Amino acid sequence: MSQFEHVTVLKKANVYFDGGVTSRTVVFADGSKKTLGVMLPGQYQFTTDVVEIMEITAGDLLVLLPGETEWKPFTGGMQFEVPAGATFKVDVKTITDYVCSFISVS
Amino acid sequence: MSQFEHVTVLKKANVYFDGGVTSRTVVFADGSKKTLGVMLPGQYQFTTDVVEIMEITAGDLLVLLPGETEWKPFTGGMQFEVPAGATFKVDVKTITDYVCSFISVS
Repeated sequence: MSQFEHVTVLKKANVYFDGGVTSRTVVFADGSKKTLGVMLPGQYQFTTDVVEIMEITAGDLLVLLPGETEWKPFTGGMQFEVPAGATFKVDVKTITDYVCSFISVS
Repeated sequence: MSQFEHVTVLKKANVYFDGGVTSRTVVFADGSKKTLGVMLPGQYQFTTDVVEIMEITAGDLLVLLPGETEWKPFTGGMQFEVPAGATFKVDVKTITDYVCSFISVS
């Protein structure tokens, strides 16, 4: 799937780490939300509110998932999942394009 | 208008200038196209294919429009228009969030 159809896109960008990470919020008809983001090379730490599925569209990065001690490599076409209320780190080697899905359990 | 509804968003990011400028392409029901972009501080030169209307959502930049010799300041809430087939330069002072509308005349 190369595009998301019948969605709402928020006009305002989400900007983190002085622009090292930026994203746009996309809302689907069912109310679910994804962000389409770009991470420039660098190390960043994130904390999740809900479960997040990070799908790497393009790029090259190392990820330290919660509770793990080993950084694992990810490239375009791969994805990883992070539990709610958890912290993970990324070490972005080349510009990384991603889709983050937020999974709210109600 | 803080969001665009009933649109298609391309999953893949547009990346220019080593990530200094990135954007996402949004396609509207009538086939018209906008990009939602972020420019990090720096100087960039662009050449248009069609008329472009650049609406600054947030940020602070100087713009050298085609045929002009004076850089003019723009901030959030302002916009400028560039003719088709023209070159313009921007000198981004703080992270700039923009919406670019592409006006094809058929």
